[in-house]
Amino acid sequence: MNLKHAIIFVFFSLNIYSQTVKQSLSLIPWPKEIQTKQGFFKINPEFSLNITGNAHPRIYKAATHFLRRLDGRTGLFLKQGFITKSDEDSNAQLQIHCQRKGEVGIYEDESYSLEINEKSIIIDAVTDIGALHALETLLQLLQNNSDTFFFPNVSISDKPEFKWRGLMIDVARHFQPVEVIKRNIDAMAAVKLNVLHWHLVDDQGWRIELKNRKKLTELASDGYYYTQEEIKNIIQYASERGIVVVPEIDVPGHATAILTAYPEIGSNYKKNPSEQTASSYSIERNAGVFRPTLDPSNPNTYKILSEIFDEVCPLFPGKYFHIGGDENEGKAWDDNPVIQEFKKKKGFQTNHELQSYFTLQLVPMFKKHDKDIVGWEEIMNEKMPKSTIIHSWKGANEGSTAGASLINAVKNGYRTILSNGFYIDLMQSINEHYMSPIIPKNAKLTTKEREHILGGEATMWSELVTAQNIDSRIWPRTIAIAELFWSNPQNPDVSNLLQRLPSVSNRLEELGITHIRNKEVILRNIANYQNTFALEYFSKLCEPLKIYTRNKGGTEYHMYSPFTLFADACTVDASEALQFNWAVNQYLKEINPTNLASVTSFFEQWKTNHKELVVLSENAPLIQPILPLSESLSLLSEELLQIIHHNKEYDTVYLNQLWEKCNSKEYADVELAVVIGLKKMIENLK
Amino acid sequence: MNLKHAIIFVFFSLNIYSQTVKQSLSLIPWPKEIQTKQGFFKINPEFSLNITGNAHPRIYKAATHFLRRLDGRTGLFLKQGFITKSDEDSNAQLQIHCQRKGEVGIYEDESYSLEINEKSIIIDAVTDIGALHALETLLQLLQNNSDTFFFPNVSISDKPEFKWRGLMIDVARHFQPVEVIKRNIDAMAAVKLNVLHWHLVDDQGWRIELKNRKKLTELASDGYYYTQEEIKNIIQYASERGIVVVPEIDVPGHATAILTAYPEIGSNYKKNPSEQTASSYSIERNAGVFRPTLDPSNPNTYKILSEIFDEVCPLFPGKYFHIGGDENEGKAWDDNPVIQEFKKKKGFQTNHELQSYFTLQLVPMFKKHDKDIVGWEEIMNEKMPKSTIIHSWKGANEGSTAGASLINAVKNGYRTILSNGFYIDLMQSINEHYMSPIIPKNAKLTTKEREHILGGEATMWSELVTAQNIDSRIWPRTIAIAELFWSNPQNPDVSNLLQRLPSVSNRLEELGITHIRNKEVILRNIANYQNTFALEYFSKLCEPLKIYTRNKGGTEYHMYSPFTLFADACTVDASEALQFNWAVNQYLKEINPTNLASVTSFFEQWKTNHKELVVLSENAPLIQPILPLSESLSLLSEELLQIIHHNKEYDTVYLNQLWEKCNSKEYADVELAVVIGLKKMIENLK
Repeated sequence: MNLKHAIIFVFFSLNIYSQTVKQSLSLIPWPKEIQTKQGFFKINPEFSLNITGNAHPRIYKAATHFLRRLDGRTGLFLKQGFITKSDEDSNAQLQIHCQRKGEVGIYEDESYSLEINEKSIIIDAVTDIGALHALETLLQLLQNNSDTFFFPNVSISDKPEFKWRGLMIDVARHFQPVEVIKRNIDAMAAVKLNVLHWHLVDDQGWRIELKNRKKLTELASDGYYYTQEEIKNIIQYASERGIVVVPEIDVPGHATAILTAYPEIGSNYKKNPSEQTASSYSIERNAGVFRPTLDPSNPNTYKILSEIFDEVCPLFPGKYFHIGGDENEGKAWDDNPVIQEFKKKKGFQTNHELQSYFTLQLVPMFKKHDKDIVGWEEIMNEKMPKSTIIHSWKGANEGSTAGASLINAVKNGYRTILSNGFYIDLMQSINEHYMSPIIPKNAKLTTKEREHILGGEATMWSELVTAQNIDSRIWPRTIAIAELFWSNPQNPDVSNLLQRLPSVSNRLEELGITHIRNKEVILRNIANYQNTFALEYFSKLCEPLKIYTRNKGGTEYHMYSPFTLFADACTVDASEALQFNWAVNQYLKEINPTNLASVTSFFEQWKTNHKELVVLSENAPLIQPILPLSESLSLLSEELLQIIHHNKEYDTVYLNQLWEKCNSKEYADVELAVVIGLKKMIENLK
Repeated sequence: MNLKHAIIFVFFSLNIYSQTVKQSLSLIPWPKEIQTKQGFFKINPEFSLNITGNAHPRIYKAATHFLRRLDGRTGLFLKQGFITKSDEDSNAQLQIHCQRKGEVGIYEDESYSLEINEKSIIIDAVTDIGALHALETLLQLLQNNSDTFFFPNVSISDKPEFKWRGLMIDVARHFQPVEVIKRNIDAMAAVKLNVLHWHLVDDQGWRIELKNRKKLTELASDGYYYTQEEIKNIIQYASERGIVVVPEIDVPGHATAILTAYPEIGSNYKKNPSEQTASSYSIERNAGVFRPTLDPSNPNTYKILSEIFDEVCPLFPGKYFHIGGDENEGKAWDDNPVIQEFKKKKGFQTNHELQSYFTLQLVPMFKKHDKDIVGWEEIMNEKMPKSTIIHSWKGANEGSTAGASLINAVKNGYRTILSNGFYIDLMQSINEHYMSPIIPKNAKLTTKEREHILGGEATMWSELVTAQNIDSRIWPRTIAIAELFWSNPQNPDVSNLLQRLPSVSNRLEELGITHIRNKEVILRNIANYQNTFALEYFSKLCEPLKIYTRNKGGTEYHMYSPFTLFADACTVDASEALQFNWAVNQYLKEINPTNLASVTSFFEQWKTNHKELVVLSENAPLIQPILPLSESLSLLSEELLQIIHHNKEYDTVYLNQLWEKCNSKEYADVELAVVIGLKKMIENLK
């Protein structure tokens, strides 16, 4: 081999090597630029880090936390304990350099570079916030063989595609304790999200302690609210992780909680306003869109709101304040002659114009506190200041075109963020979210317009979500969404994502995320603390009902209903169902005995599993509701096995009947996620 | 059958029925008086409760929480939502009557009666705190068949044997976040404990925010401390559950954290006191008994302590304040000529006299705040006021007779509580704790002296415990200890306890206790998110090293070491080991093929399991440390199987060698809990 060949060979093999390593890296979000190199950095107890430059103090805490996480995974007993500003160690293997202090907020420089070689790791960032991202990337790079932990040698240069990468948590429908918010902030940071949108007020509760207006928590929180110290503490916690907190007080609709405390500013018509007493409104216990709405014609409405904002705004140092504004149907306005008179006097034709009037009254209240208003798309009107951020949320479910208001907003000179496509309460699959781009493919945008699309937010509405299972509703799907926000993949490849996802999702456990552990807790309760094997297996075939089909009309469940049911344990992307559907596809691609056997092994297991569930159910009433579904699956399995193995006659009617029963959504608020594969098998066997 | 016979028969069968029902009731602590009756109260969605009398508001919150817990277990969608004082429903099925408001504290009336019949449940209590206990008992009574939940008809009349039923949590060695404390308060209430002893200060950290002396948290907490609002919030939370909080600031030893902030009151000798700078002391990172001690000769010591107590006392409304006082070895005093001079001048012969002088200076500081002093047994001296409570803790491990100081205290007219026997950090079995009575069997006590024995406390020292696994160290063993404190069984029957325990332990999950779920989290990390079956199985054979044999000398682990290791997942009373040892005993009682087979099935499984662990370890470095132990067990299993099934020659030396290897405590900080059974089998096969 001559030199030229040798070089080509080396280059070629290096390239293959790089490809392989790159494919095995479980990085999410995928970095903007990454080059893998041969070799690795081995971690031993002497591993230490050093911070230079002029960083915000958050980096020292984060670096200490990084060491503890690394040590927790590796069990290496790293010698370095706490990192403080006074520690300096130019010999440390991991060198972190930040040029300047970062400020949380969407316009900060979050870029970083990460260079791993055999002997050293170098993180370079303009701000410490970039360095935080680099540390998360580094943790994701951790690999091992049988007795060593190491980082593969790589060069990464990374920065986000979108400035606003948010997660909204609704704490009004079901209150979420401080630790739930905190652990989710940690998880957000792990996937480089930077905005926590805190939906603090809705029909079902007011969750902010106000010193000047104690009635709000006394009458409209059931005792579940955040004290101002807790709010400050959470903001501080978020800031230490590079995340800005955007509070939301939803007005003028979704106002039952506010009106429970201040019925006098409600739109219900009373001939004598003094009749507008506490009994006019009470905290909503159901889910849905409700009538109670603030009275836009009443000066007192603005006085009270202004005073509330005066107390709430200073609690939140961030630049943005979300005023809601969604789903005001205006029914209470239509029914109130005083408001109708006001509307007429002002020359408003529509309730939207009336709402716009209302919204415009709020503008100076926030200008005073130097806040930019964010609001759901309904707040848009031509008089709103251009500093407003329009939160686009409507789509097919609301009879709109997905993202239409997003484009409309930037065309009108507003900044905007998108949540349509990222409604994680709808129980849609990773695939559905991941294939939902922020910027519609066919959108024709100027550079300026493109810049005004700030990013997006996953929205965790909590009607059907408690502190026990909220993590399993947010994660892992929000990991996929986070990649859209940071990397904005032009040709999203979900199968590639799914290879990287399990590791990132599993590691959220280290941050206290309960998406795995609490599923088991719910199942143990359902099984009455008998062996959960069969129940857990069945839960991997089922998914909770989707897109508002659970709790249809909002009246089956109250906010205090038990959310300890089978549907509450099940998750989207049911793992065993995915396996089955995949096995069916393999079989249909290549019909042979091996592929058939892998399909029929599921049928065998489903028969056995049903028998076990029946036995379990004898001492577990909460299993009863799922038996009909399990039985249908078992019967269909039996029938298919008879056809396949014993040449039983193919009975179209009977098979379809059985399949329809498997496809039922009448039991236990779940659906069998294997019906697609089953349908294909039935067709195939015909 | 004539009437007389019929009556006898009915009586007889009722009696049998009652016995059976009584045995199946998983009540812990077992009530003072209980009568079971035929029949049951069936629970349906209309189930509701009503509160009458003059109770403290805590009962409404507790009753609401009771409904939610009941609903969570049954999934019945109970219609009653929130219970408030204004709700009144004389037709409610569950009637709760409280005569008067309860005050948390150890002298409150905690008695209750609970009467369950087909159509009604009646709880009667002097105070709402008794009613809280009744609600916990009622939840423990919940039973079910295949599709119904019910309470069995019973009559219970109950009250505690001891007034002080405590759990101590050390938050200095490893800080425990607010939610850890809260969920453990819930669990305490579930088993009728009433004192949370909060060990807030030790060598490894100061955990209380002081507004007047910020240096303490700035310099001696690593940022991990409770704000005053959090402290108040926790006290409120405890009070709502009938639990009083007793803070501890440990002085004059265990003072490294205090001295890190205030080196000038330390006992280290410097010719020039101004040399006593911050560098003299720094937060301790190891475990053990350390030299740093407050200077009893320095007036400034008392000035600073007095000011600290002036700020801390008002935070805690309870009557008791724990001043520690333990393990002051006086080494720093011996080495300091100024202190020696002071000692001589005061005419003290021993360091204990000098410590007594110190302690007596503290008495007025607490009298001022109307607090009774509690302290570890070392604080006892004849000049302490009789209001002092002596906390007896020493026993065999400290070269003392267990409970000696308890008897000594009451003989000297002091009140006392016992913790010797309840050191749950020692990793001893339920049996060992349960067979450890508060009052020594042979103690001869007057009525007054008996009354002065207030109760006991389980102590959760946290050197080797983090927020992730603390629950599995406290529970379920503290359930057994709680029964000692409440019921004081005269002839404790551990096998009876063990029948009742699983259900009570499992149900702690409902309160957020993580003793089951977090074990799985730790194992998943160790297994590197591969299938944990083999690892989990092996963890059920192993127990963490006991009685100070893990981290011998206190230097192997730092407070920031990884506690994510196999030993941290393992628990006392390893379940599979108990099964094996039981199977061996059965076999030795009755040597027959069936009983032999049940023993050898373990050997087969251990061989298989080892192979699986080896495979797992190829991608999980954290499994490596346990392989030698697993291998030894596999080899011994193989050898025993060869002898039993293949008549291999019995090789005493080889078998003993193998057994010794299984009995090793050199690997992964665990011990194989099956060695007792193995030893017996080896002896038997000889």
